[in-house]
Amino acid sequence: MHQSYISVSYILYQAKNPPFNSNLPSSAPVILFFVNFRSEIYLNPFRKNLSMKKNETKPVLVIHGGAGTILKKSMTPEKEKAYRAVLNESLKKGYSILSKGGTAKDAVEAAIRVMEDSPLFNAGKGAVFTHDGKNEMDAAIMDGSNLMAGAVAGVSTIKNPVTAARAVMEKSEHVLMVGKGAEQFCEKNKIKTEKASYFFDQVRWDQLQSIKGTEKTQMDHSDKIEKIKKKTDSKFGTVGAVALDKSGNLAAATSTGGMTNKKFGRVGDCPIIGAGTYANNKTCAVSATGHGEFFIRAVVAYDVSSLMEYKGLKVKKAAEKVVMKKLVKLGGEGGLIALDAKGNIAMPFNSEGMYRGYIKSDKIAHVMIYKEN
Amino acid sequence: MHQSYISVSYILYQAKNPPFNSNLPSSAPVILFFVNFRSEIYLNPFRKNLSMKKNETKPVLVIHGGAGTILKKSMTPEKEKAYRAVLNESLKKGYSILSKGGTAKDAVEAAIRVMEDSPLFNAGKGAVFTHDGKNEMDAAIMDGSNLMAGAVAGVSTIKNPVTAARAVMEKSEHVLMVGKGAEQFCEKNKIKTEKASYFFDQVRWDQLQSIKGTEKTQMDHSDKIEKIKKKTDSKFGTVGAVALDKSGNLAAATSTGGMTNKKFGRVGDCPIIGAGTYANNKTCAVSATGHGEFFIRAVVAYDVSSLMEYKGLKVKKAAEKVVMKKLVKLGGEGGLIALDAKGNIAMPFNSEGMYRGYIKSDKIAHVMIYKEN
Repeated sequence: MHQSYISVSYILYQAKNPPFNSNLPSSAPVILFFVNFRSEIYLNPFRKNLSMKKNETKPVLVIHGGAGTILKKSMTPEKEKAYRAVLNESLKKGYSILSKGGTAKDAVEAAIRVMEDSPLFNAGKGAVFTHDGKNEMDAAIMDGSNLMAGAVAGVSTIKNPVTAARAVMEKSEHVLMVGKGAEQFCEKNKIKTEKASYFFDQVRWDQLQSIKGTEKTQMDHSDKIEKIKKKTDSKFGTVGAVALDKSGNLAAATSTGGMTNKKFGRVGDCPIIGAGTYANNKTCAVSATGHGEFFIRAVVAYDVSSLMEYKGLKVKKAAEKVVMKKLVKLGGEGGLIALDAKGNIAMPFNSEGMYRGYIKSDKIAHVMIYKEN
Repeated sequence: MHQSYISVSYILYQAKNPPFNSNLPSSAPVILFFVNFRSEIYLNPFRKNLSMKKNETKPVLVIHGGAGTILKKSMTPEKEKAYRAVLNESLKKGYSILSKGGTAKDAVEAAIRVMEDSPLFNAGKGAVFTHDGKNEMDAAIMDGSNLMAGAVAGVSTIKNPVTAARAVMEKSEHVLMVGKGAEQFCEKNKIKTEKASYFFDQVRWDQLQSIKGTEKTQMDHSDKIEKIKKKTDSKFGTVGAVALDKSGNLAAATSTGGMTNKKFGRVGDCPIIGAGTYANNKTCAVSATGHGEFFIRAVVAYDVSSLMEYKGLKVKKAAEKVVMKKLVKLGGEGGLIALDAKGNIAMPFNSEGMYRGYIKSDKIAHVMIYKEN
């Protein structure tokens, strides 16, 4: 009603001091005041929404560190503590940006960099090895406010692939760059590189050797292979983040080292916009983790968005339908994190566990690994 | 009604020769006949649909040879004749497979191979050159009957990239392979390769030189650059096909040489399932051609499918909404071909022209280039 008072005062002033020959009758200010009062009543709800969007959106950050056969019985307390500590650090780092008014894309990049820098997760340092004993990493980022996106695939020298993806989004006309070409672009844009030794992790190396040693019988799908595959715990190793910032903008990002022993320049869903990563202020931000091939074929991330946009489903229902029904039907194991523009969260997974967490305005980092907690 | 007669005869036979102490009154056969007659009436529409799907689906093949600034005034009669001849050959080749009862995936592969083998189209032989003077080709294929998909990106030695994509779909557990790794996979699977000289085309080479010469000013978006870009007519050069076979299955495939002067291992929408290529018997088969970055960000091919599945739009309306509204709003130039499981076709484009055509059961190849024909 602040504006009404000002305009009424102005009209009264004008009526008393007409700047030119005014034809206003004496009752005019009262009538105008009435009209203005009515218009305030009608416009108020819209004004309130606008101001909420502009000033009052409470930031939210959701992260994941990969889904797969993560069982409490096969986890040591030390290992679990270490995982929870990195997830906690990632949430705090990303949220500190949001709480200071930073953008959703800044927050998801920062949250992912923490996990990329930890050897525990299959992204950046600690990425799994390809059949040839190399690290080939993929990453993507998408800005829900303008549908801009960037991604890299098959890069071996980039310290933080998510930062490379962001450079592709912001410093090129392209969306996806692969291999040596992507590395040349990063070099030109001064994206930090590291030598192969930086990415090396003994556990990952041993995983490769144990899978390679059994390769001749890998086609048999023997129990032994399944056990080794499970033991390696790397199949769906991917990290991701989705964020909602104070301006009401969404962003999503995902980063991965792919599959242990992968060959032939295989690329999974992570750097594919619409499959592993998607963000749109109109609907939601999504980052997926799972058996990438199924996630590509099911266009998972955009499917969640489509179910919201075209079928009117809430983010939780849409995400559950895609992960627990459509993916299960197709045979695709994994999960995803999704966040809508109102701060509603979904974190469904059809695997044994998913490293995940979220942080809201109470600034408490909620970290979970198994189905229960 | 065939079954009704048989069952009535059998009941009459049973009534006359009861195998055990029958309690049937004399009117039973008539009542049972009536019931059976009623059930035939109710079941008939479903039976008819099933038999149509199983035996009577009329095959359809739709192809495109890329969209862009294709103006009649800048086309010579000889050049136009040559384009129309290859499109015609592609349609005839693909349709001959469908009419003999071949699969939709066989048909789209065959149709695309004709265009890949022609230097006129930016795919296979005649692919445009990268900044480094190389050919880096992408292709994808998807089978709508089982949502299986395969794609290659950044391959330089494969004669027919669409055949490589099909090998990825059928002979690997993966969906997308890139660069040298993809070529190793092709070598292992005896996919035909060619030397760089096979792909060389003087027109494409000259296009690269004319763009490279102006590179220093390319950021200025000057008229001169725009004219050169338009003259090169290569920006959206892509070929694609969608088919419906006699079994009612859909398939889609796309193949491209990308953008002239492309750098940094850039990959466009063509090999991205959901962006440039998608097929699902439930909805439609789509192959897109246009400014790939926009097509990735808009998840174009799957968006057409989603609008059909979740909003109930017909293929024509869904395709038009994506190309003429959503893409235009985003600034994305190009078009697509789409085909539903009933044989309905859509071929919208928001550019000046699109090389395109279709063939149905009358076996007449309809070929079009400009907005009118």
